[in-house]
Amino acid sequence: MKKVAVILSGCGVSDGSEIHEATLALLAIKKAGCEYSVFAPDKEQTDVVNHYTGVKVKEKRNILAESSRIARGQALPLSELNPEKFDAIVLPGGFGAAKNLSDFAYKGENYSVIPELEKVLLKANELKKPVGAMCISPVLLAKVFKGCKITLGAAGDASEAVEKNGAKHVVTTHGETVVDEKYKLVSTPGYMLDAGIEQIAEGADNLIKELLKLV
Amino acid sequence: MKKVAVILSGCGVSDGSEIHEATLALLAIKKAGCEYSVFAPDKEQTDVVNHYTGVKVKEKRNILAESSRIARGQALPLSELNPEKFDAIVLPGGFGAAKNLSDFAYKGENYSVIPELEKVLLKANELKKPVGAMCISPVLLAKVFKGCKITLGAAGDASEAVEKNGAKHVVTTHGETVVDEKYKLVSTPGYMLDAGIEQIAEGADNLIKELLKLV
Repeated sequence: MKKVAVILSGCGVSDGSEIHEATLALLAIKKAGCEYSVFAPDKEQTDVVNHYTGVKVKEKRNILAESSRIARGQALPLSELNPEKFDAIVLPGGFGAAKNLSDFAYKGENYSVIPELEKVLLKANELKKPVGAMCISPVLLAKVFKGCKITLGAAGDASEAVEKNGAKHVVTTHGETVVDEKYKLVSTPGYMLDAGIEQIAEGADNLIKELLKLV
Repeated sequence: MKKVAVILSGCGVSDGSEIHEATLALLAIKKAGCEYSVFAPDKEQTDVVNHYTGVKVKEKRNILAESSRIARGQALPLSELNPEKFDAIVLPGGFGAAKNLSDFAYKGENYSVIPELEKVLLKANELKKPVGAMCISPVLLAKVFKGCKITLGAAGDASEAVEKNGAKHVVTTHGETVVDEKYKLVSTPGYMLDAGIEQIAEGADNLIKELLKLV
């Protein structure tokens, strides 16, 4: 049975992992007959947002503890993720990818990916393990894999920023995927587009299907 | 297009709504061609649990704000839920149902349902609108609708407690539903059983299908 590592960045679209994307990625993995393990950095979130008011609040939350809500049990520290033990890696979206796994939300084109994640992605590539990314998370791939091909849905500020970093951005619509054969990457737009949850499910299913073809 | 009100109790299995059940209920509603609106009580959670350690922590979180994470936008205050405007109501599971929507987690058979929810459920029944409940949430129905028929999966402490309150408990396995025609109730065991996320998806789909037959 193939094993997929899912890397989360908290629990909630505005300061962590987008919950629908994360949940539907887990479902797509199981529906494809694979197992998953959930990983997240064991550190404080960059910020905490009240999702009712949309306003930042003075609270501290730990990314690993919040990601464990989506895992409904212990997520594992990202530092313990050894790509040798998995067939593929998946990065759901949400602002956590741009706030906690990188500083893309604050620095735009001059962003960097956290070293802990960069190390995992480079190791995965060295081992020829495919990596899938949803929504805003393909920006993480664009930084680590020079000149790679990804999608962020429509063209806009985010796609311009990754293109300035040498990536090739492909415009897509709901449920579509973009495959980079060289680096073994698959991306899908998720909630980068104004989508319904049923379109997120379709994108997650297609992402996992394409990812497994690259294993 | 039919409209379903989904009532949440926070965000996370141990102190709020179970995230997979809530997300997959929303997906099942959209897949069935219906729209949803998410509601939650605007009050403090009974407790906050670190989902990595499983230990209660000294934090305060608001049920409406946390439920908005699953809604990925503003959930609406439960006090504003008018059953006249909806065709059906759904209650996903998670300890939040037993801690925030009732005190079942602390009082067992001597529990009560919060008045705000009881009022909504009684009004729904008066209007002959069906109500669906997953996982532990059928205990809420058992208290409000005397002698109703529900499932909590296997027989155990929870099913004994509702039977002492006059409900009829039906043993079920993954994905199955129990329909109470008299009160127009549908229940499914969800994570009351040791389940995989794909079995939760099946249960959510079946719950919504049976629910819509009662509209």
